Amino acid sequence: MTRTYETQQHCPVARSLDVLGDRWTLLVIRDLGLGRTKFGEFLDSLEGISPNLLSDRLKRLEEATIVQRVFYSKHPPRAEYRLTEKGEALRPVIEAIVAWGQRWEPQDAD
Amino acid sequence: MTRTYETQQHCPVARSLDVLGDRWTLLVIRDLGLGRTKFGEFLDSLEGISPNLLSDRLKRLEEATIVQRVFYSKHPPRAEYRLTEKGEALRPVIEAIVAWGQRWEPQDAD
Repeated sequence: MTRTYETQQHCPVARSLDVLGDRWTLLVIRDLGLGRTKFGEFLDSLEGISPNLLSDRLKRLEEATIVQRVFYSKHPPRAEYRLTEKGEALRPVIEAIVAWGQRWEPQDAD
Repeated sequence: MTRTYETQQHCPVARSLDVLGDRWTLLVIRDLGLGRTKFGEFLDSLEGISPNLLSDRLKRLEEATIVQRVFYSKHPPRAEYRLTEKGEALRPVIEAIVAWGQRWEPQDAD
């Protein structure tokens, strides 16, 4: 994987954000953590994302070995997505973001 | 602040990423957490960022009340940036990203 932060290679935050530094990416990881596995489920959940963009993000996550694609039907070919061990290891990141958001970015009143 | 994820308003991850979901933003917060306070310090640290982009990110962080700008000289006007309480509360997020990056995105061998 090409690193954007070539010059900041020594910093683990910069290295991580090379992989995670896109808002949809972390939302896909959140969905996987919540048990969603199918392309269509992500598409429903991530309102506003286009199929192409979702496809690209999933591909990048596969390349980064955060997500694995498992085929469960050959005819027609159907796949589902699962977090790898590296992907599961992002749970504390998501949890820290959840805690911060609940405390500091509360939901707007209706 | 306008929310990008209008439809995902109920999700604290989506709400947080509305504010944080940009790779430079979290790197600026990392720098502030490391004690950097001056515009020039961020510019030196964040190789590849343009002054305009940095200025925009700092402004957004101020609007989100994550960062405050403190003037320490009137003539010429000079400011420094500090994390607010809300910004300091992001420390566990940065720490979780550091831990993940150290374990799962190790530095390339030279």
